[in-house]
Amino acid sequence: MAMDTGLIFHPYMRPGRTARQTFDWGIQNSIACDRAGFGSMLISEHASQIWENIPNPELIIAAAALQTKNIKFAPMAHILPHQHPTKLAIMTGWLSQILEGRYFMAIGAGAYPQSSYMHGIKNGEDTAFLNEMVRESLSIMEKIWKREPFFTEGKFWKAGYPEEVHAENEEDEQHKLANFAPYQGKFPEIAVTAFSKNSPSMKLAGERNFKPISIFSGLEALRRHWQIYSEANIAAGFIPDRSRHAVSQTVFVAETDKEARAEVINGPIGYCFNRYLIPIWRRFGMLDGFARDAGIDPEKADLEFLVDHVFIVGSPDTAVKKLNTLFQACGGWGTLQVESHDYYDAPAPWFRSLELIAKEVAPRVSLPDVVHAPAMEDAVAA
Amino acid sequence: MAMDTGLIFHPYMRPGRTARQTFDWGIQNSIACDRAGFGSMLISEHASQIWENIPNPELIIAAAALQTKNIKFAPMAHILPHQHPTKLAIMTGWLSQILEGRYFMAIGAGAYPQSSYMHGIKNGEDTAFLNEMVRESLSIMEKIWKREPFFTEGKFWKAGYPEEVHAENEEDEQHKLANFAPYQGKFPEIAVTAFSKNSPSMKLAGERNFKPISIFSGLEALRRHWQIYSEANIAAGFIPDRSRHAVSQTVFVAETDKEARAEVINGPIGYCFNRYLIPIWRRFGMLDGFARDAGIDPEKADLEFLVDHVFIVGSPDTAVKKLNTLFQACGGWGTLQVESHDYYDAPAPWFRSLELIAKEVAPRVSLPDVVHAPAMEDAVAA
Repeated sequence: MAMDTGLIFHPYMRPGRTARQTFDWGIQNSIACDRAGFGSMLISEHASQIWENIPNPELIIAAAALQTKNIKFAPMAHILPHQHPTKLAIMTGWLSQILEGRYFMAIGAGAYPQSSYMHGIKNGEDTAFLNEMVRESLSIMEKIWKREPFFTEGKFWKAGYPEEVHAENEEDEQHKLANFAPYQGKFPEIAVTAFSKNSPSMKLAGERNFKPISIFSGLEALRRHWQIYSEANIAAGFIPDRSRHAVSQTVFVAETDKEARAEVINGPIGYCFNRYLIPIWRRFGMLDGFARDAGIDPEKADLEFLVDHVFIVGSPDTAVKKLNTLFQACGGWGTLQVESHDYYDAPAPWFRSLELIAKEVAPRVSLPDVVHAPAMEDAVAA
Repeated sequence: MAMDTGLIFHPYMRPGRTARQTFDWGIQNSIACDRAGFGSMLISEHASQIWENIPNPELIIAAAALQTKNIKFAPMAHILPHQHPTKLAIMTGWLSQILEGRYFMAIGAGAYPQSSYMHGIKNGEDTAFLNEMVRESLSIMEKIWKREPFFTEGKFWKAGYPEEVHAENEEDEQHKLANFAPYQGKFPEIAVTAFSKNSPSMKLAGERNFKPISIFSGLEALRRHWQIYSEANIAAGFIPDRSRHAVSQTVFVAETDKEARAEVINGPIGYCFNRYLIPIWRRFGMLDGFARDAGIDPEKADLEFLVDHVFIVGSPDTAVKKLNTLFQACGGWGTLQVESHDYYDAPAPWFRSLELIAKEVAPRVSLPDVVHAPAMEDAVAA
């Protein structure tokens, strides 16, 4: 099967953009991706970062709902420790109904301690603590989606679902409870995102059969992500499916290699990497994997290095070749999740790139069938 | 000054409507009201009621933001005990930025115990307890909007705002905090809704100089609302302004009285009242005021009684006359907040009514200037 395409909208808008511009750019991208044939659009949720300035992805998803036809939407991710699980379960259920199923949901614990602090969590560096909040929240959300009576006093939240009271007479509809369970009563597919090589998120994803999403941080981490996920998935009685794996990457395609490279180095993508992403990636050690793949010192990993050795930048032919090389080395994945950037002032090259990615690149990159089988044989042998 | 018009969208959609239909009807109404000249559209937030099936007004407001030009939006009301104050403060701040100020905010404690129960509050009938939650939430939201460092461990929530860390170098923007304070850094106008005759919400509104909104429940309650509000407002050092007072009412206008009356009795409005509103109004004693005004037994207050003695139904001339009579009796108000109904299947009469209300009725109903002055003289005398 051919690789699918998704957009991940963080959105990396340069400081100074207004909320309205950011919001408008989100809607414009959703419409462009839907037309180009992208399978999904994911939107971040961040309360603290000036370069990742969307606190409520659901507002963009709602605004795009009636203006798009086929594309699926997901938050990436709702930060569970920051909100009441009932409120979130009802909102996401209602939104999945509005989208008539064009919806899935990514969940997270919160990566930025400043944002955790705003929501009353002083120990935002303590991932074990945050993950405990995530588990409690998720278990409450699942109960709310079931719409069966319960009341729970958890460590972090209280929540319940009432019995529906019987009507006083046939015409009386005042007691009927609204149904905000997800579309057709099914739980939405849940995704989790992993970055570090031995990510505990990938283990959780495997155990719970969640959709695994990797932020590309080098070949070794990518291989390891799939290994951790598939082992946990098999151990939990599921069959790992590489087509559910999404990998987010910086991708820019133009008519020629030269044009694409110049656009990335001199345009909004390069500006964002120099100002924000390279400093933050350096801080979190996110350049180490790329440097290891290329055999260089991580301190030397600059924008030009990334463009030439890490990103998928070039003509459609070059992009196909780079992706197929990666697929051979790691086994491939289902969805290439393109990182969006701030082309708000002059969007033409960006929208052209999206079109080329969906129409000229993705159909020529296939998930090899053979990769799937050995994992299952291993499972039988184990 | 002439009376302004607003729409209140609960939305009283009949059971069986899909979420998508409800959502679509909300967007259609926002566009129609914006074109007709309505000043505002308010959207309810309810987690439990099948007839009031919008759990997240912000999703409709966001979807309407770029499709409307002049109309202001507000939730009516965000239920503060159901959500983390930081999350809500950031979302509303961001949304007011997206709308570039076409935003205000109504707050509430939650009227339906079933909905409180879902959010972990077993004593949802205890209004003193809920109001304590409202006060704590509001004080946290105001701190978040200020964007100054704090950390608080309240009775119900913990929350904080971090110090912005200094950048490591001039090009480094990773530490900059996003600004999700309301548009231009001003707090949004806050509104509260009152129904019962001696509503404590009206006192709170006066004390804090919030915008007062009355759900029309008879002349005596309306007079009393203004009295409670203006006394508290004056005592707190403000000058009460009747133009800020909004009153929500059932209003339907057609070319002739006969046409309007038949449409209300036999159409979606009558259906909703018979199935939902009359039973629930009876349960909460909400018909008593109307019955008292007309000198009848509340048990006899049926749909026809409401149409002929309570609602504003008729030709433009009749509607103007009814409103001016009410204005003379109670002193008038600033905004007539029209209750929306489910004309999704055949919207023409509904949109025609909205147009007549904004263009033929409202300009002919004026807030008498004289009403304002005595309240101020009282204040001086007091």
